Amino acid sequence: MGDRVAIIGTGLIGRGWAILFARAGFDVWLHDRAPGAVEAALTAIAANVLLLQAEQLIDDRATLLARVKPAASLFEAVDGAFYVQESVTEEAAVKAAVFQELGQCADRAAILASSCSTIPPERFMNTVSAPDRCIVAHPFSPPHLVPLVEIVLAPETRPSVAQETVDLMRAIGQRPVLIHKPVVGFAVNRLQAVVINEALRLVRDGVISPEDLDLCMSEGLGRRWAFMGPFETMELNAHDGFKDYATRYSAVYRSILDDVDTRVPWDDDAIASIEAWRRERYPTRADVTERRLWRDHMLMTLGRFLERAARDAPPAAP
Amino acid sequence: MGDRVAIIGTGLIGRGWAILFARAGFDVWLHDRAPGAVEAALTAIAANVLLLQAEQLIDDRATLLARVKPAASLFEAVDGAFYVQESVTEEAAVKAAVFQELGQCADRAAILASSCSTIPPERFMNTVSAPDRCIVAHPFSPPHLVPLVEIVLAPETRPSVAQETVDLMRAIGQRPVLIHKPVVGFAVNRLQAVVINEALRLVRDGVISPEDLDLCMSEGLGRRWAFMGPFETMELNAHDGFKDYATRYSAVYRSILDDVDTRVPWDDDAIASIEAWRRERYPTRADVTERRLWRDHMLMTLGRFLERAARDAPPAAP
Repeated sequence: MGDRVAIIGTGLIGRGWAILFARAGFDVWLHDRAPGAVEAALTAIAANVLLLQAEQLIDDRATLLARVKPAASLFEAVDGAFYVQESVTEEAAVKAAVFQELGQCADRAAILASSCSTIPPERFMNTVSAPDRCIVAHPFSPPHLVPLVEIVLAPETRPSVAQETVDLMRAIGQRPVLIHKPVVGFAVNRLQAVVINEALRLVRDGVISPEDLDLCMSEGLGRRWAFMGPFETMELNAHDGFKDYATRYSAVYRSILDDVDTRVPWDDDAIASIEAWRRERYPTRADVTERRLWRDHMLMTLGRFLERAARDAPPAAP
Repeated sequence: MGDRVAIIGTGLIGRGWAILFARAGFDVWLHDRAPGAVEAALTAIAANVLLLQAEQLIDDRATLLARVKPAASLFEAVDGAFYVQESVTEEAAVKAAVFQELGQCADRAAILASSCSTIPPERFMNTVSAPDRCIVAHPFSPPHLVPLVEIVLAPETRPSVAQETVDLMRAIGQRPVLIHKPVVGFAVNRLQAVVINEALRLVRDGVISPEDLDLCMSEGLGRRWAFMGPFETMELNAHDGFKDYATRYSAVYRSILDDVDTRVPWDDDAIASIEAWRRERYPTRADVTERRLWRDHMLMTLGRFLERAARDAPPAAP
């Protein structure tokens, strides 16, 4: 593992990566093709780091910020970097152009990772010279406040590259999971997609109001899923473990699933009614921005709560 | 609102209800047809209340416990009760028999509520004399640690009964949501069903391991859903509100949803591999019981964290 990384594309995702790597002690070089983008990113990163310090999630703001540096060109950014994290626009052609350039400029031993969330990785990675060093490291928004990273192997990815990326993610405090096949949406966005689809359908059909639907998650399902996945949640709700739950309730779930439809387009009226509810509660863009700051504050304090709870938890079986 | 409630059926759900009502100052009368069930429930309630006091979630354990009393018969339990919460086995015939008896014994003005989670309520409520006083109040497991309650109107339910039940749920510290039509699975279990189904499918297809799938929730989606519903999560991830998100990402979600299948039966091999992972980590029934205590501890401390955070949150628009 080297000590220098490059961030290509400095929007919300690239900025989050920069904070994560700098916090872990790496030198971070930022590049973005758009004029002024890197400067804007440096300002936003400084603001975010201020919030992290206010929550006592970092010790020394100045040292962290000194590690994040602007690069005038992609070449300058990747020069000497052992790891490159691409976070440009989610368009195959744009990503393909960046990866082709990375293939030419980056150190031959460097890992070339993409923050890609939905494009099949082979669509922009197979034009790179030596594509076995390419991989997807898909974070969640905002990356420096949500630990999960999906590590997605493209068909040509070398297994050692996957292992090194997993190790690096752990080293910067993230929680990597391995996606062995690049299915559309990987894992997390597939889970999110079915929830959103069913939620919209329930609102469309007048079963529940938008506000109450959101409460079903935050006051119900989300209470358990904040610290356990769906499988562990199932196990702990049955007498004799996971299989007991699956056997006991499969017929009931089947009757629900027979009534679910993932093929119907999202309903415009349902979307309009949710938008109307949101604007009633948060009328202006400034209100939404403030609410986003509240979300980030919640993610920071919840993260600290869960980290402490994990330290205090009884150990699992060896 | 009176001061006396009856709990019919004293399994895990009935016990949770008893704690909630007693904590709020109501006199709670327990009845269960099975010999010894009420005594077992009283012991379990005392143990749970001890845990609540250890977490400083209740002040005076003795006063709370003194409010919970065994009733020798259903008639004795409901005598003078203004609210009856049925929590017997999830079988239509069993619930129908209980409701028929409740219709005869309970005060004519009393609300007859069922903890029913999946049976269409009209299947056991329409045989009751004056079925307009019947309603579903569906809690989550464990009820005294998860605030959500689905209030489901059966076709004959009087609207004032729904309003009074909503008010009562708020009075005991729960968060009621209104389900206007009794669709199968109501809202929450429909959301849970699509997540479980897709999770099993991803494991079946070798996309992800059971352990990593659970991490997708607890280290990713669940971090946000712990305090926001899916709609607010969407809004805060777009520049211009909910509709902007729905418009911007609908094509991507459509491509995911086109690849989702809710019609395929759950895969036995996937279930076996998840069971194997659970038994490797938690080999014995005692290990699972300990883990369930950890879950309850987490729900208690997370609940307190979220309650404090809500008090400190910036107010929404008036």
